Order: sequence, then C-alpha cells, then structure tokens
Amino acid sequence: MIAYEVIRRKRDGLELEPAELAELLAGYAAGTVPDYQMAAFLMAVYFQGLSPRELAVLVERMLRSGEVLDLTGLEGRKVDKHSTGGVGDKVSLVLAPLAAVLGVRVPMISGRGLGHTGGTADKLESIPGFRTALTLGEFREQLERLGCALITQTEEIAPLDRRLYALRDVTATVDSIPLIAASIMSKKLAEGIDALVLDVKRGGGAFLPELERSLELAQTMIGIGRAHGREVVAYITAMDRPLGHAIGNALEVEEAVLTLRGEGPADVRELTLALCGEMLRLAGVAADAAEARRMASAALDDGRALDRMQQIVEAQGGNPAVLDDPAVLPQAPVRRVFEAGRAGYLVAVDTRAVGRAAVALGAGRTTLDAAIDPAVGFHITAKPGIRVEAGEPLGTVYARDVAGAEAALAMLAAAYRIEDEPGPAPLPLISHRVSADGGEPLAD
Amino acid sequence: MIAYEVIRRKRDGLELEPAELAELLAGYAAGTVPDYQMAAFLMAVYFQGLSPRELAVLVERMLRSGEVLDLTGLEGRKVDKHSTGGVGDKVSLVLAPLAAVLGVRVPMISGRGLGHTGGTADKLESIPGFRTALTLGEFREQLERLGCALITQTEEIAPLDRRLYALRDVTATVDSIPLIAASIMSKKLAEGIDALVLDVKRGGGAFLPELERSLELAQTMIGIGRAHGREVVAYITAMDRPLGHAIGNALEVEEAVLTLRGEGPADVRELTLALCGEMLRLAGVAADAAEARRMASAALDDGRALDRMQQIVEAQGGNPAVLDDPAVLPQAPVRRVFEAGRAGYLVAVDTRAVGRAAVALGAGRTTLDAAIDPAVGFHITAKPGIRVEAGEPLGTVYARDVAGAEAALAMLAAAYRIEDEPGPAPLPLISHRVSADGGEPLAD
Repeated sequence: MIAYEVIRRKRDGLELEPAELAELLAGYAAGTVPDYQMAAFLMAVYFQGLSPRELAVLVERMLRSGEVLDLTGLEGRKVDKHSTGGVGDKVSLVLAPLAAVLGVRVPMISGRGLGHTGGTADKLESIPGFRTALTLGEFREQLERLGCALITQTEEIAPLDRRLYALRDVTATVDSIPLIAASIMSKKLAEGIDALVLDVKRGGGAFLPELERSLELAQTMIGIGRAHGREVVAYITAMDRPLGHAIGNALEVEEAVLTLRGEGPADVRELTLALCGEMLRLAGVAADAAEARRMASAALDDGRALDRMQQIVEAQGGNPAVLDDPAVLPQAPVRRVFEAGRAGYLVAVDTRAVGRAAVALGAGRTTLDAAIDPAVGFHITAKPGIRVEAGEPLGTVYARDVAGAEAALAMLAAAYRIEDEPGPAPLPLISHRVSADGGEPLAD
Repeated sequence: MIAYEVIRRKRDGLELEPAELAELLAGYAAGTVPDYQMAAFLMAVYFQGLSPRELAVLVERMLRSGEVLDLTGLEGRKVDKHSTGGVGDKVSLVLAPLAAVLGVRVPMISGRGLGHTGGTADKLESIPGFRTALTLGEFREQLERLGCALITQTEEIAPLDRRLYALRDVTATVDSIPLIAASIMSKKLAEGIDALVLDVKRGGGAFLPELERSLELAQTMIGIGRAHGREVVAYITAMDRPLGHAIGNALEVEEAVLTLRGEGPADVRELTLALCGEMLRLAGVAADAAEARRMASAALDDGRALDRMQQIVEAQGGNPAVLDDPAVLPQAPVRRVFEAGRAGYLVAVDTRAVGRAAVALGAGRTTLDAAIDPAVGFHITAKPGIRVEAGEPLGTVYARDVAGAEAALAMLAAAYRIEDEPGPAPLPLISHRVSADGGEPLAD
C-alpha cells in the first residue's frame, strides 16, 4: 500500500519521490488515505522535515486543490502582507488601505484567530455589518475599484490545506516549519499575488519564539515564493510583548482607526510604515525605502488612507461611521483598571498568557466553530522596561461580566512581571529583513 | 483537550504523567480518542520512546483491557516461551510438550504469521482437525491435565493491544522497541505466567536486525517482567539464516515431529534444549543448566516429549497420527529442486527475502484476514559457510502450481548469495543470555 510505504520512508528520513508524495496527497483528498495514516505522516514530517523538492510537491498539491485566482487582467502589481500571528497585531487594518491608496493592489485573504492569537477577519467583523465572505467575483471587482478587498479564506481556496490544517490542529503537528510555510504560501499563491511581504514574529507570543526558527520559516517561505516566480520579503518583528495597546477585536479596530488618523501607538505606526514601504517597493510604486516611507507617512497624516478604509468598509457592508466615531463599535459593559501589584520595573510580559487571557474573556476561540465576543479585551499602555509604582494603572480590562473581568485581572497580574531590578532589553521592533538575497540584521 | 496535550508533550520529549497517559489510552479504548490522534501519538512514541514509568502504564492498561488468567490454583510453575519472530522457527512445537512432560506448566498463547515470519498457530492448524481456538475453560483444563495447551490470542486477551497493533501495522509504527515490548509482555502477563523465556532474534531475518536493538528489546521486556514480579530471561539467537531446514507450515510441523523423535536438524534441537533448560530452571524443576540439559535431551531421545505432543494434538482435535506419520499432513502437488546457480561459497542468505518468498508461495499472509496454504514452502539444507558446485541441490520448493514454484526458485536464487571467496562467519546460534542481573555474552 502506498500510504504505508510513504509514511515509513518519511519516518526513516528518506526523501520521497514527487510521484509517491503526490499520490499520498491525492489519496487523502479523495478519501482513500484515512486521517490516521495522514496523522502519522504529519508527525513523521514534524520530526524529519521536508526537502525542498518534497515541499514544492506539497505546496503545488494544496494550491491546485482549489481555485487559483488569475488577477493578471488587473492593472498594477498585486502585493499582499501576511503575519505569522501575534497578540494585538492590527497592522493589516491600517496597511491594506494605506498600500492601496498609494497604488498597490492588495488582495488580502486573512484568517480567523486561533489559539492565543487574533485574526484579521474576526477584527473586521466587529464592525457592524462588515462582510468578509465576499464571492470571488465581488472580491475581484472591489480589488479593481478600490485597490483592496479584505476577505476570509473561502471553501474554494486551497481546500486540501484546510483539511490538513484541521488535522494538524488536533494532532500537535501545527508548529512544523515546512508545514506552516506550505500552508501559508499555498493560500497566498492562490490569491494571484505578484509579491508578498511577510511579518514573521519572534519572542514568547509568537508560534515559533526562537530567532533561528523565525529565520528558517522566513527562508522556507521565500524559497517557495521563488519556486513560483514570486518575490517574497520577510521582516522579523518583536512579539515578546503585545503590539500596540489594544487586544481584542473592536478595541483593535478602534486602535487601527486612530493609526489611520496619525494618532495610533508608535509601534503600530512604525511597523505599518516599514511593511508598507516594502510593499511599495515590490509593487514598483516607490524607488527606494526612503521615498516609500515618505509616501506612506504622508498618506497616513493627510487622511487619504483613512478615506480609503472608509470606502472599503462601506463596500463590504460595514458601517462607515466607524472611521469617524469608533463608538459605533460594540462596547463591553464592564470595565476594570489593571493596576501594578507592586512597585518596581516591568521586566517582561508573558505575551502568550495575555493572548490566552483575552481568549478566556471571549475575544478568541478555542475551537474553530466557537463564537467570539467582539467587545471584550484589554487596553494596556505599559510596556516592558518602564518603572511603575504600586497601584499605578497599567491598562483597562473590557469584559462581558464582573467574573470575567476579575479572572482576566488575575491572569494579567501573573503575565506582567514586576521586579526590583530592570530586566533585559526588549526585542527590537524590527530586527531583520530577509529576502531571496539573504538575511540582513537591522537591529539586535 | 487531553489527547492533544499528551501528543504534544510526548512529541516534545517530556515524560507523561501516569494519569494523563492512562486517560489517553482509556479514551482510545472507549472511542472518544480517535484513531488519528492515536496514530500521531504512536509516531511521536516511535521518535521519542517511552520512559520506564510510561511503559508500565501502557502495559498495565493493555493487560487490564481484557481477561487476565488466574492460574494460581494450578499446581506447578507456569512458564512460557516467546520468540520475536523468524523464518523456519518451529521451536515452540517441540519445546512446549518437552517442557510440559518434564513438569513445567506451559500456557502458550501464540500468534499468526505476519510479514515475512511464520506463526505457531498457523503451523499447528496445518495438522488436520487441530483447533487453536479453545475457550479459556478448555485451555485451563488441558493445562491442568497435560501441562500444556497451545492456543491463539482470543478476543478476551488484551483487546487494547489488538487495536493498537492493527493501527501500528498501517501507520509504520510497528518497529518501536517500547511498543513491541509492551505488546508482547501485556499478552504474556495476561496468560497468568510465573516466568518467561524470550527468544530474541537478531540478523537480517529478524524484525530488529542489529544486536544493540535486540539487547535493548530484551532488557525492556525483562524490566516490564520485573515490574510485574515475573522473572524473564532472554536469549539472543541467530536469524541471519532460516532456523532448521523447513519453512512453511506443514513442512515445519514435520520437522518438529522429527526433532521430537531426536532426528531433527542440529540447530533446532540445540536451540530447543537451551530454551527448555532455562524454562526448567525458572520452574524450579532443574537445579542448574547441566542437569536441565540432560533431562531435556533424555525426554527427546526416549520419546516422552513425542508422546506428550501426541496427547496434546489429540486433545485439541488434531489427527494424532501426524506424530507417527507426517504424511497425513497436507502435501504440495508441485516440487522443484533448488540448485546452486554456480560454484563457490554460500556466503550469505537474505533471510527476510526467503520469508517473503514463502509468503509469495502462499505460506504466509500479507493482510490479517488472508487465507494461507498449509502445504507449500521450502526444505533447504544448505547453510551459509558451505562450498557448493554448480547445479548442486540446495533444497526443494513445495508449491501449489508450476508458476508459483518457478517464481519461488527465482527468489531463492537471488536470496542465496554464492561467491568465489568465503564470506564472514555466520552469527552464533545463541550469542547472549540476558536476565535481570544483566547480559552475558555466550559467544560472539
């Protein structure tokens, strides 16, 4: 039987022939290879990895298992951004309209939150009326008209990836670099993009905390892109603390709106400008990084990006007033101040625990079909490195009820570590830029 | 969810808590943990192994998943022998009645052939009328009356092991030392034995060819035995060539009958005497190895073991005339002489290929529910180390039809390697004795 032999050979560290791997995947798609054989195969891949040739077969099979958008008829370069997932990462909500208004086509298909991280689709859906489930026809039309459409993965895009992801999710085979890379890239290639900017998180709140693994993941995805003739550039960015101040769906939309007005937290703005600059360069809109940054800053400061986001929200059925007054977003009935339990230095944040605390409040889901509460979450201005006094307010908890608020406060108190001596320096916001030409440390 | 966490922790090389492993296994037995999660777990175990504490939980759960025979009311020590599987290994058919007639209680539950190896239950069933499927009541009664009963694994014995084995068999997770050890020992402990002799094969025809792995398997099983208060002694024996001359079910019964008459091949007799000596010592019947060997030799030479086997065959519904005249066994209609293709030294035998050739003839099965042909197989007297002339007869093929015979001859010709220069010395028949006190090389 083919499946048995393929599992055994992968287990023993042998390189699979393209035909046998393709047969295994086709058998799984057709239902002749059962879940238990695929689960054993995925665990063997977890331990033995995939060669570049095997990875290419996997990506190709996942990509071709569904619809592949052909956007070649659309004028302009199509460039998307993908983040490997973090806590408080609302950059897409600012970056997509910003890049679009500057002339990039942004066909953004984003995911839902899973585990301790949030998802762009969930955030968008906290805007009353917003539809992320456009048809592929609507998606294309909006992309042509507004330069950007923000949808969630449909049944038609890479269905084999969806099935494999669901199986990995229950068999502890998610955090395998080749499997992560293949899953992301098959979906992104199916979008019909010309180029891609990756935001690869590192630090305790990232799926792969270690720098070496982040770099390896970046290089793996860049390699897949190159094999498909797409330029991919990756930035390694900090997730040893939440990004910005807001964590939770409506709260993050509000912070994105502030950033689109030029009033957002410095780290959200800074990361958005860096990623936007790369998108402008990849799209051929800006000649170099300095010009790209000037263009992006100006479009944030003069309201053009905000206007474009308002058009996008309106086009997708959302209440456009959200861009003028975020109070139209769902509001949590219970608010509690999160205070420092003692005086000292805020030396570190267990970012994953903060993400889990938000999920516990209802901001995320523990199973794929769970409902989320758009209003709940945190607004925390304190960042590692500062000195605090006992009782000093560090942030606010937004909850559905008092019990949830109290539980969240206890989780936050455990996650924000305050000590007598200052801790090590936090990670630089952006530490590396990695491209097909190699890696380039930007900071340490 | 418990299953996910257990898989992840095993994957990451952490030691599982007894309670969580027990919960996983109970969930699998109850059907709440699906096959795909268990398959991922088994592959993680393949890579990360099991600690002694984890192994104890697995054995205990498999053992307690079914009936555990209580033979304490039966006078005398209950000692069994188990082989890890080989080609031409008919030792149990001689050893069981021999040990029984000398005063050991031998509650032998044996398996069916799988892969390239044969199984004792299949061999016994080539005797017309022989029933290996006794009820546990019949088993106990016969054990009391004749000192020995020869049955196959029933539904009642270690059902969890049966399910896990079936899953391992299709997910390439069979050859993991802790999983093999737990599977064997849970079944043997369920038999109600006081002690156990293991015949752990090494060499190309063994499931684990390397000596180090054979020793590790032996030590793992000895450790499980000790944890359950059972003395286990292992012998490491040669499977770089088939044992004896006969390969195939009825042919092996015939060779066992010859050995019971004191006329069998030297290696079959020698291995039987060594294992029997250990069983006599473990049962307290003989004081030392020299006395045990004298007793066993005498019982083979004076016909007592033969008589006892005749009683056992009769008690289990088989035709007792087989002990007087093996011609009552099924006979293959086609016979072909296997001749040396060239002159030279027989330097090596690909024993696994010989086993596969027998399976291809119909002597074994490739799936658990396939039927076998009891009459077919080989009788090969040539052993590695001898010099042969071109055309010299090396053995005989017994087949159902001419095409099968021709195919088998071609496979044998490829498996028996003849060269100009003598090859390395074959492995010693018995190279190590391993007990709870440690290993003891008997030969190199």
